[in-house]
Amino acid sequence: VAPSDRPLRADAERNRQAIICAAGRVFAERGTGVTLEHIADQAGVGVGTIYRRFASVDALVSVVLEEKMRRYADRTEQEAERALSAPWPAFRDYVLFILEEQATDLAFSDVILLPRLGTALFRQETRRALEASMLLIERVATAGELRPDFDHSDLLMLLHANAGLLRGAQRSAPHAWKRLGAYMLQAFHHGGDEALPPPSSTWTRARSS
Amino acid sequence: VAPSDRPLRADAERNRQAIICAAGRVFAERGTGVTLEHIADQAGVGVGTIYRRFASVDALVSVVLEEKMRRYADRTEQEAERALSAPWPAFRDYVLFILEEQATDLAFSDVILLPRLGTALFRQETRRALEASMLLIERVATAGELRPDFDHSDLLMLLHANAGLLRGAQRSAPHAWKRLGAYMLQAFHHGGDEALPPPSSTWTRARSS
Repeated sequence: VAPSDRPLRADAERNRQAIICAAGRVFAERGTGVTLEHIADQAGVGVGTIYRRFASVDALVSVVLEEKMRRYADRTEQEAERALSAPWPAFRDYVLFILEEQATDLAFSDVILLPRLGTALFRQETRRALEASMLLIERVATAGELRPDFDHSDLLMLLHANAGLLRGAQRSAPHAWKRLGAYMLQAFHHGGDEALPPPSSTWTRARSS
Repeated sequence: VAPSDRPLRADAERNRQAIICAAGRVFAERGTGVTLEHIADQAGVGVGTIYRRFASVDALVSVVLEEKMRRYADRTEQEAERALSAPWPAFRDYVLFILEEQATDLAFSDVILLPRLGTALFRQETRRALEASMLLIERVATAGELRPDFDHSDLLMLLHANAGLLRGAQRSAPHAWKRLGAYMLQAFHHGGDEALPPPSSTWTRARSS
């Protein structure tokens, strides 16, 4: 129906931007458990238009969250660098940064807990964030600022816990994540009197593979 | 269609038991976010049969969970009593008991976080559990076994966190709730170097009303 090729391309690009923009808003507010139909509705395009460009919600999530994950990886690398001179503040700020990102963006909360097979760029940024995170933990542990039985998977545990707190209590206690974070940071910092139950072997194996 | 009144009543009672039994199983495995249709299917009765006896899933939840809540209240009262002579073990076992109940029964996990307006008996048992819990905390705090800024709502915070951990990681880390519990118990026990962010005022107001 288009009179020439150029307006069609401009139209297509406009639709694409509308879809990505609407998807980012929907994901942040409601998480990634939404349908392409809902996103199409929010973007004001037909669902067929979305399907022609994105095969699934996952594909759209990857594109939208590439930028988010890039910033997350950047921040993690900065804190890993800072850990050389100020190990505890670097660790503390890193942990509180993640918890706050979860609190303000449900899509981010979903995606760091269920890393998906997204675009090559998305996977690459996720990998960069994970590597920086492990370097950060190693430096903070070497500086003696973490209890000896702290395990890297304890961060994953905390993220799942915070996701539950956000899901169940965001209305009645919107800042509860700060208090949970403060408690957990103190527990990670100081060795307790009693040994901890071991971390999940599935989690520790996944890290070393 | 029934030939007499008596077989009808026996039939009705059998149906009622089948419904309650199936509902208990479904709630424990999948939480309370299920439909009456699904429960009818599991119980092998028509959905009309359920609707005649229970107006909603909530009504059925109340009946099924009355017994569960009664045992929970009993246990809490026992630990409150024990707190007079052994405050810390009583508090520790109480907290780990709740976390484990959440881990083994998703319906219980739902119901203590979203207390519903159920039967009079259910509400009464919930109230008894809450009162015993507050008595327990008061005794443990008086004994100096909790950090001074511990707040009763920190237990609610922990339950939401544990629910998230169970939801997200039950397959990959089925015992992670034990490690989360151990960390949090140590954090509740020992005063930290830094002040905690305050608890939610909505939560603290709800308690005093």
